Amino acid sequence: MARVTITVCTTCRRGEPADAPDPRPGTRMLRALEAADLPEGVALRPVACLSACSRGCTIALSGGPDRWSYVYGDLDPEAHVADIVAGSAAYAETDDGLVPWRDRPVIFRKQSIARIPPQE
Amino acid sequence: MARVTITVCTTCRRGEPADAPDPRPGTRMLRALEAADLPEGVALRPVACLSACSRGCTIALSGGPDRWSYVYGDLDPEAHVADIVAGSAAYAETDDGLVPWRDRPVIFRKQSIARIPPQE
Repeated sequence: MARVTITVCTTCRRGEPADAPDPRPGTRMLRALEAADLPEGVALRPVACLSACSRGCTIALSGGPDRWSYVYGDLDPEAHVADIVAGSAAYAETDDGLVPWRDRPVIFRKQSIARIPPQE
Repeated sequence: MARVTITVCTTCRRGEPADAPDPRPGTRMLRALEAADLPEGVALRPVACLSACSRGCTIALSGGPDRWSYVYGDLDPEAHVADIVAGSAAYAETDDGLVPWRDRPVIFRKQSIARIPPQE
């Protein structure tokens, strides 16, 4: 089964003003996930922008051509890391990326920005 | 080069009430694109939901593991088909899905919901 990737937007400001001190919330999110105990087969990938700037912090969850990909937003690097880890573990356990609704963390149920079907 | 797919959400309501007569705006978008002259190598794929319901009509543009994928929203099946066709043609001409900003239709510049980097 293909590895699962959490793509983390490192430039998300999460409403902070442009002159706020570094690091940006998106970079703090990356660092918090780097410090977390990620499930086996789940890797992090930083990216400069997921084009969902009004919904930062944002991440994308993907895993090869057979899985649905998801983009989540309005994430808090201080509050949501444990849920992101749990949600990515549930996602990694699927073949198609479709985790039963009740098994998804609330942030994944309520803060989904969009999803894309598996590659043809 | 991998084929390009326009994934069309057929269940988007675009603000119409639940008891509005069928077909839904998302289904009208699919039919309008089916009737259009799509660029070579670009295919349509209907899907029941892209989880961006508040931003309907929505489409996703993808094309194999080497291209960025994009989700666009607030699309009008009566007004935006020509721009979607033009934007998908420009996307299909790239290897990575990154069309220069000025070559993107305005709806793609202003109505991007999110993007996902190429599969690892």
